[in-house]
Amino acid sequence: MTRNKIIEQIHHKKSFLCVGLDTDISKIPKFLLDLEDPVFEFNKRIIDATKDLCIAYKPNIAFYESMGIAGWKSLKKTIEYIPEDIFTIADAKRGDIGNTSKKYAETFFSTYNFDSITVAPYMGEDSITPFLEYSNKWTIVLGLTSNDGSKSFQNLALEKGNFLFQEVLESSSKWGTKSNMMYVVGATKAKDLLEIRKIIPEHFLLIPGIGAQGGDLDEVIKNGINNDVGLLINSSRGIIYAGNDRNFDSKSREEALKIKNKMSNYL
Amino acid sequence: MTRNKIIEQIHHKKSFLCVGLDTDISKIPKFLLDLEDPVFEFNKRIIDATKDLCIAYKPNIAFYESMGIAGWKSLKKTIEYIPEDIFTIADAKRGDIGNTSKKYAETFFSTYNFDSITVAPYMGEDSITPFLEYSNKWTIVLGLTSNDGSKSFQNLALEKGNFLFQEVLESSSKWGTKSNMMYVVGATKAKDLLEIRKIIPEHFLLIPGIGAQGGDLDEVIKNGINNDVGLLINSSRGIIYAGNDRNFDSKSREEALKIKNKMSNYL
Repeated sequence: MTRNKIIEQIHHKKSFLCVGLDTDISKIPKFLLDLEDPVFEFNKRIIDATKDLCIAYKPNIAFYESMGIAGWKSLKKTIEYIPEDIFTIADAKRGDIGNTSKKYAETFFSTYNFDSITVAPYMGEDSITPFLEYSNKWTIVLGLTSNDGSKSFQNLALEKGNFLFQEVLESSSKWGTKSNMMYVVGATKAKDLLEIRKIIPEHFLLIPGIGAQGGDLDEVIKNGINNDVGLLINSSRGIIYAGNDRNFDSKSREEALKIKNKMSNYL
Repeated sequence: MTRNKIIEQIHHKKSFLCVGLDTDISKIPKFLLDLEDPVFEFNKRIIDATKDLCIAYKPNIAFYESMGIAGWKSLKKTIEYIPEDIFTIADAKRGDIGNTSKKYAETFFSTYNFDSITVAPYMGEDSITPFLEYSNKWTIVLGLTSNDGSKSFQNLALEKGNFLFQEVLESSSKWGTKSNMMYVVGATKAKDLLEIRKIIPEHFLLIPGIGAQGGDLDEVIKNGINNDVGLLINSSRGIIYAGNDRNFDSKSREEALKIKNKMSNYL
């Protein structure tokens, strides 16, 4: 998907919401367990209930992988079910030496036909460039993550005066363009967004961490928005587990709508 | 698998060789393509030909993932085929926020029953500790990798005077023990091994990068060996693609034997 298509979608739907499909079979409504593929059935109903309110879906690959082959089948059906004009993100945090990253790119861009994948930067340039070789596909690099553990290394001060996460943004943004790279910045780091926007003013940011993780939506938008909006704000558990009975999908819709309405104010 | 069992194996086989199963269907001998599961058949023959010479097998998950569901089936059959006394490594480079890393741990330690998994440290402590909760399973953290891209971030100088990879070793080694953590150090970084051994004298190191990537085996052993040997040295392409006809497995055995014989000199 092109950058222009993403921006068009945002203005058309008045939303920059991404719904995270962290679908855990132990957390979905019990009545779905009688169906042949409960995880896909859950996702299908969430997608039906939210597809006019969001511009992206982000399946968290770990949740599918942990179910073995059945999980990959559910994932494939889910991806095929998502309407073509909605951006898809494989939240996979991959990254390895060149010949291996090439295989990960093949997995998510060809085998499963995602529009984008999240990647971890520790192994550096040649671990990320193989993902950038696909046209109209996106590489979403971890910048400053939403978890407590982001302090372990991302916030380390470097000899040259900046922090590691700032160096990651600065260096890696030269490997691609604003049209094939995005960055993950946690919503719990809203205060850092002003500084981050000085380093990468134009890139889209994928922002997880509102909802269950406690990030403040308005603060994130105010500090992170740019001329092209430049934000995909994700909520996973807050939306998909809003209800737990036969009406879970309307509960999810209600939660998605609340966020979407807040977003519309900024568009 | 316990640390003692690994050490016993090393002395029993006079080897600390790990064979990397980076099995690429486009690179295996053509006659295998007529069989039902060519990737598994290839691995099976490599395992049969090398299992008395090595103490670990390391499937590179990207190569299986990229084949979709068929790949995961081949992987599962491969893991089940590896003799129980041989250490298994899921080379997966995973790592995410706590609830997601928990799912990745479940994937590789329960669903696929690997003894260990490689993990990327960028997301910090709570992205790694979920893997450490399994008893007799191992978490292998990226320290200093073999690729050129290791220079991008791992070699950055920190304000406090050390390099990022040294800080990763120092901090993360406190999260687990020498009996449930190992580190990846590339064979191309043999000179750094002396310094690395000062930080983590007792941990096992998983060392890729001899063979195709050009690392020097003797230099790696001399600089990295400790009282418990403390090394698992991996070769992938150099062994598994040594031949390309009906006798490919004996060619692989020859290559594995050459490395094993060099290793025996140090035991």
